[in-house]
Amino acid sequence: MSGSVSPLAPKTFVDMPALRGVRMATAAAGIKYKNRTDVLMMVFDEPAAVAGVFTRSKCPSAPVDFCRQNLGGGVARAVVVNSGNANAFTGKKGREATELTAKSAAKAVGCAESEVFLASTGVIGEPLDATKFAGVLDDLATAGTEAFWFEAAKAIMTTDTYPKVATRSAEIGGVKVTINGIAKGAGMIAPDMATMLSFVVTDADIAPAALQALLSAGVGPTFNSVTVDSDTSTSDTLMLFATGAAAADGQQRVTDASDAKLDAFRTALNDLLRDLALQVVRDGEGARKMVAVTVEGAENDAAAKRIALSIANSPLVKTAVAGEDANWGRVVMAVGKAGEMAERDRLAIWFGDVRVAVDGERDPTYSEAAATAVMKAQDIPIRVEIGLGSGRATVFTCDLTKEYVEINGDYRS
Amino acid sequence: MSGSVSPLAPKTFVDMPALRGVRMATAAAGIKYKNRTDVLMMVFDEPAAVAGVFTRSKCPSAPVDFCRQNLGGGVARAVVVNSGNANAFTGKKGREATELTAKSAAKAVGCAESEVFLASTGVIGEPLDATKFAGVLDDLATAGTEAFWFEAAKAIMTTDTYPKVATRSAEIGGVKVTINGIAKGAGMIAPDMATMLSFVVTDADIAPAALQALLSAGVGPTFNSVTVDSDTSTSDTLMLFATGAAAADGQQRVTDASDAKLDAFRTALNDLLRDLALQVVRDGEGARKMVAVTVEGAENDAAAKRIALSIANSPLVKTAVAGEDANWGRVVMAVGKAGEMAERDRLAIWFGDVRVAVDGERDPTYSEAAATAVMKAQDIPIRVEIGLGSGRATVFTCDLTKEYVEINGDYRS
Repeated sequence: MSGSVSPLAPKTFVDMPALRGVRMATAAAGIKYKNRTDVLMMVFDEPAAVAGVFTRSKCPSAPVDFCRQNLGGGVARAVVVNSGNANAFTGKKGREATELTAKSAAKAVGCAESEVFLASTGVIGEPLDATKFAGVLDDLATAGTEAFWFEAAKAIMTTDTYPKVATRSAEIGGVKVTINGIAKGAGMIAPDMATMLSFVVTDADIAPAALQALLSAGVGPTFNSVTVDSDTSTSDTLMLFATGAAAADGQQRVTDASDAKLDAFRTALNDLLRDLALQVVRDGEGARKMVAVTVEGAENDAAAKRIALSIANSPLVKTAVAGEDANWGRVVMAVGKAGEMAERDRLAIWFGDVRVAVDGERDPTYSEAAATAVMKAQDIPIRVEIGLGSGRATVFTCDLTKEYVEINGDYRS
Repeated sequence: MSGSVSPLAPKTFVDMPALRGVRMATAAAGIKYKNRTDVLMMVFDEPAAVAGVFTRSKCPSAPVDFCRQNLGGGVARAVVVNSGNANAFTGKKGREATELTAKSAAKAVGCAESEVFLASTGVIGEPLDATKFAGVLDDLATAGTEAFWFEAAKAIMTTDTYPKVATRSAEIGGVKVTINGIAKGAGMIAPDMATMLSFVVTDADIAPAALQALLSAGVGPTFNSVTVDSDTSTSDTLMLFATGAAAADGQQRVTDASDAKLDAFRTALNDLLRDLALQVVRDGEGARKMVAVTVEGAENDAAAKRIALSIANSPLVKTAVAGEDANWGRVVMAVGKAGEMAERDRLAIWFGDVRVAVDGERDPTYSEAAATAVMKAQDIPIRVEIGLGSGRATVFTCDLTKEYVEINGDYRS
C-alpha cells in the first residue's frame, strides 16, 4: 500500500484557534514502537462538563467501559489517548490497565480518577503495559498548551492519511464561544487501526446533562450516518467537553438543552460534527469517491435511514461506484434487501440530477451518457424516492476499491 | 477479469442420472445475444407437485411474483428459465412479459398458465421481449430428454465458473427414489448476473403441502446459510418438484411432511440442498477460500445465526481471510456488532483446531504460527463459543478479494 494522501482530503486545513481552558501535549511512551508519538493528554485546569457517545458493540474495549462509568460524574479534568494498543479484548488485565492509567493521570493533574477519561487505538487482544504512562503523564500534565489542536490531531492518526480538525464559533446570550474538534478514523471502524475517536471541546459554560443531550441529538445525522465498511469498532468514542471559560466573558451557564440561548450553539456544534464525520469518510480506507445516499418518502425517518444504510453498505453498490458504473439496478437491490416498506412501482432513483428510474421502470428518458458523467465525479449523490411517506435520511459512504482489500488483507502481517 | 475456473471448484463432477417424469432442453432465443443458449425448458408430462422459496427482497422480479401466485395451485407442468434479462424492475411491462411467456409455454405443453413457473436472470431494468420465446418453446416442449441435467446446469450459468449439479437417492417405504438438482449463482446474489436460481426434482410421489414443508425447513441451514457479499437478489428462486413417477414402483403417495416414511428422503434432500448451496459459495465472485463460521453457545439458534452472519458478512473478516491473516480481533469486532447477547469475558475463538482467544483474552498458549498455518488452507473453519446458552448455527462464506472488486466494478461497462 502507498502512503499517499486520500484524493478526497481537504485542499487546505483550517487554522485552529486556541481554546481557553484546555491544554494539550503529546509524547512517545513506547507503547508499541520506540520514539513514536503515541500518547496525547488533554488537561482541563478547571473541571469541565463532559458528555460522550460510544460504540454500540457488545464487546467494547476497556477504555470505553471506563469512560461510560465515569460519565455519570459529569466532570472531566484529564483525557489520555494512546495509539499502538486498543486495550480491547484484554479481560481483567485491560481493566487493570485503565485503572493504572487513570491513577497516573489523576496524580499528574491532581484530580480524582473519576475525572479522567481514556481512549485507546491500535491492535486488539494485546495486553497494554500501562506502567509506561506513569512518568510520561507527569510531564504532559505541565507541558500542555492551548494552541496545540493540529498537532493533537496528527498525534492520534493511525492509518489516517490526513489529520482531521474543525472549528466553529457561536454566540450564547451575546457572548462568543468557540468549539474545536479533532477526529481520527480511516474506515469507520475497524477493531484495530481504524477505530473512530473524536474529541470536541468548547469554552462555553454548559451543564453536563445539557451537553449530553446536545451530543446525543447531534450524533444521529453526523457520526452515526457515516459508514466505510459497515464494521463497528470495539472502541468508537466521541466526547464533548465544555470548559466554561466563557463564563469570564459573562456567559451565563446553561443547564437545559432546550434553552433557546443554545440554538446557535447547537447549529454550530452539529455543523462541526458533520464536518469531522465527513472527513472520516473522505479518508476511508482505499476511498477514491465519496457517496451521499439520500432516501426520501420512506415510511418514517428510521426506515429511510435503514434503507440508506443498506445502499451505503452494499458491496455491489460500492464496487459499482468504484468502477464509475451507473448501475442503478444495484440500488434497487439494496432497497429491496433493507426489509423496509417499499413498492417497486413507486420507486424513483437519481444519480446526481439524472433520474435513472421512475414508476418501477427505467426512466423513459434515461441517458446512459448523462448517468455515467455523474459517476466520473469525485462526489456522487444518489437519491431514492420511496413514494410511501415523508421519512428522510442521508448517509455518507465511500467506494469499495481494490486498495481497501489490499490495506485490510495485508495490515497485520 | 480472467475466465478461469474457481480454485474451489469440484475436481470432478458427479454423473447425473436420468430422472423419470421430467424432460429438459435448451435453445438460443436471442434474449440479449444472438446464437447463445439462453433458455431452458423443463416439462413434466404428468402434473408434478411443486414447492418454492424465493428472495425476501421487497422489490422482487416479475417472475418471482408470478411463481408465488401460481404456487398455491400446487401443480407444475412446465418451467421456463432464461438468462440475459432478469425481468426485474420492469413494472407493468414485466408482468406482461411473464404472462406472455406463460401463455406460450402453456400452449406448447398443453397445460394451464397456472401450471407454468418462470425464472429469469440477467440485467435488470431492461424490458424483456417475451415474443422471442413463442416458437422456441413449441420446439423445446417436444425436444426434451430425461438425461439432460449437466447440460441444463451449464445452460443457466452466467458469471458462474462451473456448473452446479447434485444427485441423491433415498427410500420411501422401501421404494428407491432419486433427487436431482441444479443451481446457478456466483455471488450469493447480485441483482444482475449473479442471481441464485436452483431447480430440484424428485421422482418421489409427495403432495404439494408436504413438499413445501420439506423445502421450507431444508432451506434454513443450507441456501439461507450461505453468503458471498450480503447482497440479496431481486430474483432468488429455489423450486422443488415431485414428478411422482416412483408411484409406478409402488411408492405410496405421502401427504404429511412429518410422516416417518419421509425421514431418509428428508436427510437426502437436505444433504443435496447443502451440496448445491456450498457449490454456490465456492464459486463466489473472486473467491479463493471458503470459510465455515460456526457459532455455539449463543442465547438461541436465531441469535447464533445472526452472529455467524455478522462475521461472515464482515468485509474486515473477509479481507483478513483473503490475506491469510489470523486476525481474530476482527472476529471479536463482528461478534460485538451483531447486536446479540455476548460477554467479552466468556468468548472463545478457534481458527481450525487452534484456540486463539479464551475468557475475553488472547489464548495464553496462542501460537501465531499455528493460527497462520490454518489460514493458508483453502477451507477455513472459524468457531466462536459465546458461552451463554445452547444456540448454534453455521454459515458459509468466501473471502473478499481484489478480484471481487474487479468483477463487480467492471461488470456492466
